[in-house]
Amino acid sequence: MQTKDAAVQKATEFQTLTLITPTADISVACHGGRAKCLQRMIRLGMPVPRTVALSFDAVHDIAAGQVPDTAAILSAFDAGQLVSVRPSSEDPDWGGPGAILNIGMNDDRHRALSDTLGAEVANALYLRFIKTFAVHVARLDPDMFDGRDNSEATLRDALAAYEDETDEPFPQDPARQLAEVLRSMARAWEGTTARLLRQAKGAPADAGLGLVVQEMALGLGPDESGSGVIQFVDPVTGLRQITGRYQSQAQGRAALNNGAGVLFLTCDSRGASLQERCPDLFAQLLHWGEISRQRLREEMEIEFTIEAGVLKILDAVRVRRSSRAALRIAVALAEDWIIPREEALQRVEARALTELLHSQIDPTGPRDLIARGIAASPGAATGRIVFSAAAAQASAARGEACILVRRETAPEDIRGMHAAVAVLTERGGMSSHAAVIARGLGLPCVVGVSDMTLRTRDKMLKCADGRVFREGDVITVDGTTGTALAGAVKMLPPALDDTFRTFLKWAEDVCDIGIRANADTPADAQTARDFGADGIGLCRTEHMFFDEGRLTVMREMIFANSAEDRRAALDQLLPMQRMDFISLFEIMSGQPVCIRLFDPPLHEFLPHDREGMRELAEALDLPLSDVTRRVEALSEFNPMLGMRGVRLGITVPEIYEMQARAIFEATIEASRRGDPVVPEIMMPLVSAKREVELVKTRIDAVAAAVRIERGVDFNYRLGVMVETPRAALRAGEIAQHAAFLSFGTNDLTQMTYGLSRDDAGKFMGSYVQQGVFPEDPFHTLDVDGVGELLLMGAERGRKARADVVLSICGEHGGNPESIAFCRAAGFDYVSCSPFRVPVARLAAAQLSLEGQGASVGRRKE
Amino acid sequence: MQTKDAAVQKATEFQTLTLITPTADISVACHGGRAKCLQRMIRLGMPVPRTVALSFDAVHDIAAGQVPDTAAILSAFDAGQLVSVRPSSEDPDWGGPGAILNIGMNDDRHRALSDTLGAEVANALYLRFIKTFAVHVARLDPDMFDGRDNSEATLRDALAAYEDETDEPFPQDPARQLAEVLRSMARAWEGTTARLLRQAKGAPADAGLGLVVQEMALGLGPDESGSGVIQFVDPVTGLRQITGRYQSQAQGRAALNNGAGVLFLTCDSRGASLQERCPDLFAQLLHWGEISRQRLREEMEIEFTIEAGVLKILDAVRVRRSSRAALRIAVALAEDWIIPREEALQRVEARALTELLHSQIDPTGPRDLIARGIAASPGAATGRIVFSAAAAQASAARGEACILVRRETAPEDIRGMHAAVAVLTERGGMSSHAAVIARGLGLPCVVGVSDMTLRTRDKMLKCADGRVFREGDVITVDGTTGTALAGAVKMLPPALDDTFRTFLKWAEDVCDIGIRANADTPADAQTARDFGADGIGLCRTEHMFFDEGRLTVMREMIFANSAEDRRAALDQLLPMQRMDFISLFEIMSGQPVCIRLFDPPLHEFLPHDREGMRELAEALDLPLSDVTRRVEALSEFNPMLGMRGVRLGITVPEIYEMQARAIFEATIEASRRGDPVVPEIMMPLVSAKREVELVKTRIDAVAAAVRIERGVDFNYRLGVMVETPRAALRAGEIAQHAAFLSFGTNDLTQMTYGLSRDDAGKFMGSYVQQGVFPEDPFHTLDVDGVGELLLMGAERGRKARADVVLSICGEHGGNPESIAFCRAAGFDYVSCSPFRVPVARLAAAQLSLEGQGASVGRRKE
Repeated sequence: MQTKDAAVQKATEFQTLTLITPTADISVACHGGRAKCLQRMIRLGMPVPRTVALSFDAVHDIAAGQVPDTAAILSAFDAGQLVSVRPSSEDPDWGGPGAILNIGMNDDRHRALSDTLGAEVANALYLRFIKTFAVHVARLDPDMFDGRDNSEATLRDALAAYEDETDEPFPQDPARQLAEVLRSMARAWEGTTARLLRQAKGAPADAGLGLVVQEMALGLGPDESGSGVIQFVDPVTGLRQITGRYQSQAQGRAALNNGAGVLFLTCDSRGASLQERCPDLFAQLLHWGEISRQRLREEMEIEFTIEAGVLKILDAVRVRRSSRAALRIAVALAEDWIIPREEALQRVEARALTELLHSQIDPTGPRDLIARGIAASPGAATGRIVFSAAAAQASAARGEACILVRRETAPEDIRGMHAAVAVLTERGGMSSHAAVIARGLGLPCVVGVSDMTLRTRDKMLKCADGRVFREGDVITVDGTTGTALAGAVKMLPPALDDTFRTFLKWAEDVCDIGIRANADTPADAQTARDFGADGIGLCRTEHMFFDEGRLTVMREMIFANSAEDRRAALDQLLPMQRMDFISLFEIMSGQPVCIRLFDPPLHEFLPHDREGMRELAEALDLPLSDVTRRVEALSEFNPMLGMRGVRLGITVPEIYEMQARAIFEATIEASRRGDPVVPEIMMPLVSAKREVELVKTRIDAVAAAVRIERGVDFNYRLGVMVETPRAALRAGEIAQHAAFLSFGTNDLTQMTYGLSRDDAGKFMGSYVQQGVFPEDPFHTLDVDGVGELLLMGAERGRKARADVVLSICGEHGGNPESIAFCRAAGFDYVSCSPFRVPVARLAAAQLSLEGQGASVGRRKE
Repeated sequence: MQTKDAAVQKATEFQTLTLITPTADISVACHGGRAKCLQRMIRLGMPVPRTVALSFDAVHDIAAGQVPDTAAILSAFDAGQLVSVRPSSEDPDWGGPGAILNIGMNDDRHRALSDTLGAEVANALYLRFIKTFAVHVARLDPDMFDGRDNSEATLRDALAAYEDETDEPFPQDPARQLAEVLRSMARAWEGTTARLLRQAKGAPADAGLGLVVQEMALGLGPDESGSGVIQFVDPVTGLRQITGRYQSQAQGRAALNNGAGVLFLTCDSRGASLQERCPDLFAQLLHWGEISRQRLREEMEIEFTIEAGVLKILDAVRVRRSSRAALRIAVALAEDWIIPREEALQRVEARALTELLHSQIDPTGPRDLIARGIAASPGAATGRIVFSAAAAQASAARGEACILVRRETAPEDIRGMHAAVAVLTERGGMSSHAAVIARGLGLPCVVGVSDMTLRTRDKMLKCADGRVFREGDVITVDGTTGTALAGAVKMLPPALDDTFRTFLKWAEDVCDIGIRANADTPADAQTARDFGADGIGLCRTEHMFFDEGRLTVMREMIFANSAEDRRAALDQLLPMQRMDFISLFEIMSGQPVCIRLFDPPLHEFLPHDREGMRELAEALDLPLSDVTRRVEALSEFNPMLGMRGVRLGITVPEIYEMQARAIFEATIEASRRGDPVVPEIMMPLVSAKREVELVKTRIDAVAAAVRIERGVDFNYRLGVMVETPRAALRAGEIAQHAAFLSFGTNDLTQMTYGLSRDDAGKFMGSYVQQGVFPEDPFHTLDVDGVGELLLMGAERGRKARADVVLSICGEHGGNPESIAFCRAAGFDYVSCSPFRVPVARLAAAQLSLEGQGASVGRRKE
């Protein structure tokens, strides 16, 4: 041993390799994650075969042609010992070349092993090495080495084939074999494909590769020999459960191929198990598993070999896991006091939480099946059919859920997929573009729906039973079962188990910025509550007016010729609005509810086709010409920039008066029944201080009137939605009359860019591809432009009113980047869609833990 | 005299009154303009009757009840002398109570005067005083004192009527009479109506009134006696010409009533003249007129009285004048070395210059008369009929000239009048609302068109000959002749005489900021040149594509399916565009021309009705469905915020490439023929730096190609139109690639407010009335919001590129307030409509002279 260590020592002088010992100088940054992990395992006393680590620099030199003295490396092992080489990159996710086993096999060694372990074992070992070497090092065609058995003849054929192809005999010198393997692996790492692949996973351009050279534990031979893989959690569910396989007389990860002779690990009614065959060895495995969980502080997948009845642990890697499993593993480790809760929070990627929130189709409800395909991404969603990415984006811009139906998807469809609630493709399999991307997005997806016929040009979808669906028709996609259903289907909310709740609770404990939800309906509010939102940050009231019954009243109001007539129409809506608010207040149990006053232009409530106008004329008993004239008079060139929001509130004040009254009466009622309510009332589309003053005066008057009528006192807070650049610039004077400023980043982005989201779809793809915009500013907050307005508005607002409450309520509210921005800017809360609340919560908690964007002058609400 | 002066001296101790002498302490700020002017006239040796001035403080005290010792005042005059009282406010435009003459008339004096001057003269003097006193001091009904003659009986009736109404005899004590007159005049000044009226003219809330008490020159009596008014310029044209009238045996301004016995001043074939009757006195008048012009440095209207053959000059005021006259008077005074040119520039209100720029109908062209009325405001204009102020605003917002046709106008129509190019009303006369406002706005206007029938509800106008005109029909209004004509009519540009050119030249000499014109056509460019613009600040190229022939090619381009096909279509437009630019360059003779690249969305070039689409399908030989599909695909929810400007330039790069080539080829051609041209090329709707980089790269490449092809070198400058808030915020990085930044305040205002100009008309009136916006931000630059973006953009742009040229080219460019803002911000030039150039020039010159908004770091282009 002294000689071998001395040899290694010699090589180490040139910093090319290090024998992994408990005290050796091994680091992730120099030798990669696998080398470091192996050292930890050795420190824990695990039976790890002798291993030498080559540093990133060494491998880099090898790729450049400076192959080290491989004879010196081999002298670190027993003479004639076979070795394996495995990659050791800094992050296991960055990939690397496959392991190469049995280096050192040659004719001599073959003869010797034939004597000790028998010809078949020796043939198998040699054949495996020849094949691997031929394919991965000499780059020969794998087909030529597809021997069916481990016979002497197959071996001879393989050696001959090698010599035929390379014009030289199979290399016999172990040092040369090792040198070739190292060079080949080093070069593979530097290849363009490998580089692009790992950069896509976040690796830096200069990411290094380490290599570990390890003494082979053969897994073949006398007594019990074989190899297997064991993990102690289910990688899909994250539940504690032993999974893996073992195969006698096998090397590497062969057992996972589940071929003949593969054993279960634990006792299993379906067949033989390692637990039964070798209870002692199995107990050892469990022991090392528990040690590794406790001391490596992670759920590890352990690769082991049994050599002549002796357990060797070759390697251990972090168990690959689904998002759901990641969360459960992190919570379990924290609950077992192995890692602190804070670390558990940081181990789950915030964006991954969305995957846990899939809806499911209620199994008890009726299903009108229209197509069946491959269940490519779980979850279910209902929406209107669209046949192009552009239509999907336009639909999303209108706030309409849509299902993207395509023959197959391509990269240019990604934006459409982002905009859709589910994807359905005629072609493709589990690894088709649509399937891969949909899983990444956590989007329900069914692919390979071969029993439907898609005619994109005619914008129609024909089902096997002859039914035809067109753009705009509603269908439901169930990516869990791989089916498409006609119409909307009853859904069950995503399963939110105790683990999830525990995890969210921990996140709440460290989160230092409020997370509210944008919620318009009682269902939204309930979801917000379930996900632990700190209140409702944006309740859009206009949706409440599109109900069949209410729409008619709205139209009467629009056609009224005097303030009195308008008031009379609105009086019919008052009790309905009051009920809307009572139920929201009750669900939120005293948590803040921020209600945005009526925002859309009135023409949205009028029909635009001749037929609809005729019906309306009949319903209102008016000449058709009156109706068409009013519709024309209300139509707008640029509705986004027209008569809506506070402009309507000032021009037709009766609407806001009715809404204020409904809010106040609901406040009294809800406070009487339960927790006291302090409603927040928000004015949309403000651009001048005087707008705020005028509306405030009216609302205060309504409050005074309601207080007197009911003889009950109540409080409320009046604020402004900052969504025009001017409101941000004038936030100082606006804040004089506003208890809170909530930045509506959707509209603010539209106006700052002069870019309508409804219309941007036509060129946004090309714009982002050409790098004109680094990101779609409607997805990722434009920190440079819109962000500066947010910062100016926040600073000016706070200067004018130190206790002004600041928030954002645009769609950016749920993005981790936007949350980081808002924390840094000292905002009080962000508001996002209810389903984004857990993501936002975790992102905020992680930011808080990282101390990133440490806030200045932040106040907890 | 000593006694009288001593009495005045005594009163002066209490600072109540001052005898006006050459050395008395009289100031405009204490005694008002009339008192000061009288002192100047006395200093010049004019025969001004003895006059005492009461200060603002004294009159204020009188209004508060502290009437001074009027006997002491009267003791400043000869015993028994009649006096008059006239108002003397700080600015004559602020109004004041009417003059009261003959104070001191009573029964005794009547008897005495009957003896010396005859009964009729004495009766006339007494009656005039009784009537004035009764009406203006005692506030009795004027009808009761409408005596037909100056007989003894009438006098008795008047005295009896006074006693009947007031229950006391007509006051006989001159001191009491004067006290009552002073109190009455002081109180009238403090009245609400008077206060509001003068504040509307710009008077401060505490504006004071002085009074002058003057010895009466009777104008009645023996020898030649009488009174008159003379001025030495025509108040309408400003040409030097004696106007005015004289009447024997008359007081005050009676001669101006033009009744029987009124004389011309100069010899006149139409009747008797003062010049003939009293050549000596007339010569004296001319002498004093010349003295006053030279020494008072102004054209004065002189009120004079001849008392028994002796000339007295009672008063002189600045001649009221039209804008045209104001300019001519100022230029004449400066050319006669009476005032410096700088002062001449400051004596003409900048806004008034627009009045001088009226177009006229070409008298040689055909006229299709449809209605005749009162010529209420001069000038002529052609536009589409609108029947409401809102429609007028909408039309203006679309850039369409419109004629507002109303029964009569009311204050709520003012915005509509602003938006219209002319006004036509069924009712009203020269002083109707429409007439007064139209003259104020310099808007052609015909009122009282009784031979047309207006049916506002049906939006139609029926002419006497039975023809019917509807909203949208084109007519022409000629406010100079009081007629309305069908259709468009050939116009002559406004007469720009030498005086006007001289004046503009002087303004150019002191103007320290560039004034350019927005000009799209050769006609615009010629007007810009005529008005002395420093170049074209904004040439919108899109109008060039709406020509019949070009439109077809544009549509071919839109329907092309490849870049090659688009290029082929655009190649047809290239020679036309080149000619457009050659003619602009030639007209501007080497002055800078800033060309904005194509800006509008493509759908503006497509038909929107079924018929138009069918025609287009035929023209392009395409199925109708292809056409409708493309029209649908290109339609936008908010065209203002859609696929236009640089977005189109990047997505369909062939358009900008063609335009750049046309510009460069025109540059070579125009430079070859005349002055060297350095075109400026401007990118519209930029919101990100990368947009500028991409377009710049392409344009530079086109320039390189043209240089090589033609073997000729040329220069050009590339800049950015800053019209999105983001471009203003990111001006620093944008300026790295832009030689100039021109702020398009129209769009910038729309986006900063989130307010579409096309749609704002519906509520802007109500908004401004309620004071939500102090002004329509599309008329008056919003300094607080949009202005801050301008300042930020300018500062950041300059920081990144010290020599970046800054300007504004929105419609605000011609407003004096905006020019003040731009000067203060150190902008290099403003660009406005060609017809606003003189206004902008004069406003800038005046600012420069006043040193207001002294610029920081300004650079002359």
